[in-house]
Amino acid sequence: MIPFDDRGLLLGDGLFETLLARDGVLVDLEAHLDRLAAGCATLGLPTPDRGEAERLMRQAIEGVEAPRAAVRLTLTAGSGGRGLDRPEEPVPRLFASAAPSAVPEGPARLILSTVRRNEGSPASRLKTLAYLDNVLARQEARARGANEAVMLNNRGEVACAAAANLFWVREGRLFTPALTCGVLAGVMRARVIAAAAGLGVEVAETAAEPGELDAAEAVFLTNSLVGLREVAALDAVAYGPSRLAERLARALD
Amino acid sequence: MIPFDDRGLLLGDGLFETLLARDGVLVDLEAHLDRLAAGCATLGLPTPDRGEAERLMRQAIEGVEAPRAAVRLTLTAGSGGRGLDRPEEPVPRLFASAAPSAVPEGPARLILSTVRRNEGSPASRLKTLAYLDNVLARQEARARGANEAVMLNNRGEVACAAAANLFWVREGRLFTPALTCGVLAGVMRARVIAAAAGLGVEVAETAAEPGELDAAEAVFLTNSLVGLREVAALDAVAYGPSRLAERLARALD
Repeated sequence: MIPFDDRGLLLGDGLFETLLARDGVLVDLEAHLDRLAAGCATLGLPTPDRGEAERLMRQAIEGVEAPRAAVRLTLTAGSGGRGLDRPEEPVPRLFASAAPSAVPEGPARLILSTVRRNEGSPASRLKTLAYLDNVLARQEARARGANEAVMLNNRGEVACAAAANLFWVREGRLFTPALTCGVLAGVMRARVIAAAAGLGVEVAETAAEPGELDAAEAVFLTNSLVGLREVAALDAVAYGPSRLAERLARALD
Repeated sequence: MIPFDDRGLLLGDGLFETLLARDGVLVDLEAHLDRLAAGCATLGLPTPDRGEAERLMRQAIEGVEAPRAAVRLTLTAGSGGRGLDRPEEPVPRLFASAAPSAVPEGPARLILSTVRRNEGSPASRLKTLAYLDNVLARQEARARGANEAVMLNNRGEVACAAAANLFWVREGRLFTPALTCGVLAGVMRARVIAAAAGLGVEVAETAAEPGELDAAEAVFLTNSLVGLREVAALDAVAYGPSRLAERLARALD
């Protein structure tokens, strides 16, 4: 239980990480703890002890029977007084939870969301507790019978999905939105870029309008839980399976 | 205490209201409950029972000795499973707290924040639990020795302060950013617009670049706790006291 004066609860003042535990192994643990530490630096919060973070996550997965578990590590800015100002010496609160994580079946169907990413805030490049815009984008996708929502930023550039990074293939080249478009620096996003390099394919990190997605031959989503998931359609535009996406998915395994 | 699976805590999925209790009277109670209900409709959450909300706030102020109390009513989307999707029938959680609220001394000193408002999200017009951008803007103001931060939106238009709406006076006319600029529909903002009308002064709700503030004769902040607070300076630009602001402050009392 969390006290009523926690700033994570009251103001979204905090961060989280979501990672996969496969047969009890915390996948990409160091990369996730590195990102959490970088986020703490951006927000001006003390960095949590890595051993303690790992211990909490290991404890959380002990209760999960399934071979694949989704682990969430949450850090709040801790308790505070009234209003926006943090206490002089914030004492963050750290906790973890885990649940079985099934691999979704088949390619994803996407819609273009009306909710924009806030490229003008450093929080748009972090996994913060202020995740309501993503909740609303996902809600919009569900209401329209889709699995996920593509979010543009306020400049109208493609940013990401509600809970995944986005890549697309065009004329054999691979593209993904640049972090400056208001994009979370996904751990799987970085792994895909590295895997592509290993296959001799360069990924262009770009600011693109949604017309670029209409013209793409293939689109796929990436995140730490699912790895790489191909996209069947974005609104009325359908995509075929992609040999490059399949090769990347194999390279990630 | 709040359970670890609360969506307000995990995702900023919820809303709050801050209001003044003066000598035990909840000021503008109906307007705040109306705004909370409108926010619930936008987010797709069930509206809380008004009697229950009032009861919780009255209970919270019982413990405060001071004649002026800041009351906060918080509504979360309630408990949920893993991930962004809400349960089919979310059961919101409602709680209130109160603390003595002093009137700040003298006019405010402001800085222009580097953190932008997300005009492209409906959440930018609501008081949501995803308030981290405002926390970061305020932090920036404090670090630079100021009281409050002026936030622009991603189009570069003036939006609001971290915890207040913004007005300015120019050639005897009164201006405030339009809600479409990514601005909370402040209860005190609406009262100031009405009070100005009562004095025969029209308020222009406008999309303005920060140069408009440089050229203003006076600037003031409004929120439910403080009412109207004049501004001494925004970065290097100083403002004098404003007779119109003083008349408005008296009309609000």
